Amino acid sequence: MSKQKRTVFYLSDRTGITAETLGHSLLTQFDGVEWETVSVPFLDCERKATDVAAWINRAAEHDGWRPLVFSTLQQPEILAIIKQANCRIYDFFETFTHPVEEELHQSSARKAGRSHGLQHHPSYFKRIDAINYVLAHDDGVNPKHFVEADIILIGVSRSGKTPTCLYLGLQYGIAAANYPLTPDDMAVQQLPKAIEAVKHKLFGLTLTPAQLHFIRQQRRPDSEYASLTQCQWEIQWQEALFNRFNIPYLDTTRISIEEISATILDRCGLKRQLYG
Amino acid sequence: MSKQKRTVFYLSDRTGITAETLGHSLLTQFDGVEWETVSVPFLDCERKATDVAAWINRAAEHDGWRPLVFSTLQQPEILAIIKQANCRIYDFFETFTHPVEEELHQSSARKAGRSHGLQHHPSYFKRIDAINYVLAHDDGVNPKHFVEADIILIGVSRSGKTPTCLYLGLQYGIAAANYPLTPDDMAVQQLPKAIEAVKHKLFGLTLTPAQLHFIRQQRRPDSEYASLTQCQWEIQWQEALFNRFNIPYLDTTRISIEEISATILDRCGLKRQLYG
Repeated sequence: MSKQKRTVFYLSDRTGITAETLGHSLLTQFDGVEWETVSVPFLDCERKATDVAAWINRAAEHDGWRPLVFSTLQQPEILAIIKQANCRIYDFFETFTHPVEEELHQSSARKAGRSHGLQHHPSYFKRIDAINYVLAHDDGVNPKHFVEADIILIGVSRSGKTPTCLYLGLQYGIAAANYPLTPDDMAVQQLPKAIEAVKHKLFGLTLTPAQLHFIRQQRRPDSEYASLTQCQWEIQWQEALFNRFNIPYLDTTRISIEEISATILDRCGLKRQLYG
Repeated sequence: MSKQKRTVFYLSDRTGITAETLGHSLLTQFDGVEWETVSVPFLDCERKATDVAAWINRAAEHDGWRPLVFSTLQQPEILAIIKQANCRIYDFFETFTHPVEEELHQSSARKAGRSHGLQHHPSYFKRIDAINYVLAHDDGVNPKHFVEADIILIGVSRSGKTPTCLYLGLQYGIAAANYPLTPDDMAVQQLPKAIEAVKHKLFGLTLTPAQLHFIRQQRRPDSEYASLTQCQWEIQWQEALFNRFNIPYLDTTRISIEEISATILDRCGLKRQLYG
């Protein structure tokens, strides 16, 4: 049976991040549908809403199914225009605002753009400082400042250290450094000197040799560096090292940067502060 | 009147990102409450759920108000345990899954961790490539590769170019470069040579002189670089340049990295692909 083809619209007064997050996590639960995705952020006037309503109607006609619309629109006039289009609307604020108002015994401000606004200077600077820390302590640079790190990721080349550190800095304001384990280190089962004194901050990233081989092949095809044998040897060595020194570590083979980051925070007891 | 103090729990089978994003955007609509926030990701067994239920009950007793619980839990057994605690639950999947099933004429898989999983290799590599591109083209480095950029942010020092590029790469898989406008460039009203040929990819970041002064003071207090006069001069010069060469630009003074990024994508017509 061929897949149902449907269009999904994410409509928002502001960035659209909340609408996309909600819709995406719901729709990944349904396999049998092929999605065409349309994001409309900054939908903040009636003229734009009329255009979007026409777009929804065209998609309905083209697909033969009405589109799904995930909305975080705050202005009732704009939502009202969308409601006239041929679609099924899931409106996040309409659904949850009243139940939360009821619980808190107060009315919602119903203002757009509060979620991702620059509201508090101190947390803004903490976030920027964390990003700067990550950039200045990538790939083993400046190990003398590792005492200031919240966490130090270690692992062989292409084990995912840099993207994870960046995500931890950007999303959670965590000062994350990283230090590469290189073939030079592998003659012995010892921690490299630069990270011995900060052992309690170390967290290892590992993956299957096959996946490491696959990733390194994209970078330097058919090199010694990318060979399966080399990858097997490096992974075996680093996991033995992690075990010997009781360094917590995570197999990242099947998980995303978001999941790696959330797991590290959880296992290291680091405080989560959401910026995104 | 003193603020109501309440505890909010974000409960998830996996990263907790969806629960936090949704709950956060609802709660920012209410001013009169002081929130204590507890995130519990990876809540995936009944033993943990029993502990969390006890935690919720303690918070209720301590606050004198029952906690609010935002949940993306997928397992009914786990949700059932939480429901016995003294709290008000807002469960996203319970609320929206049935209405979406009804519309799609199929049942949800009701599996945890689909939203932020590493599902598709091609998009994973696009994302990693974008992050690597951003890191290799920060602050005017390697301008000969600017032809490969999706976008090139320009602006004076501390105008927010680097965090925005990182966010565009990590969150949306956009190859974003950035090029600093320096006092050396300011003798003339010309684009620096390195970016002349890629004018159609340029996007300017500006802010108020007062905000730039405030940010630079954190970095190099009482320097010429941070002085209000210098900031006024640099901002005036760059905005005249943007106007003269018809370069789109954005005043970032009051908005977050998320909003800056979403605005740039929207105004440049760049395709959004959500990874987070």
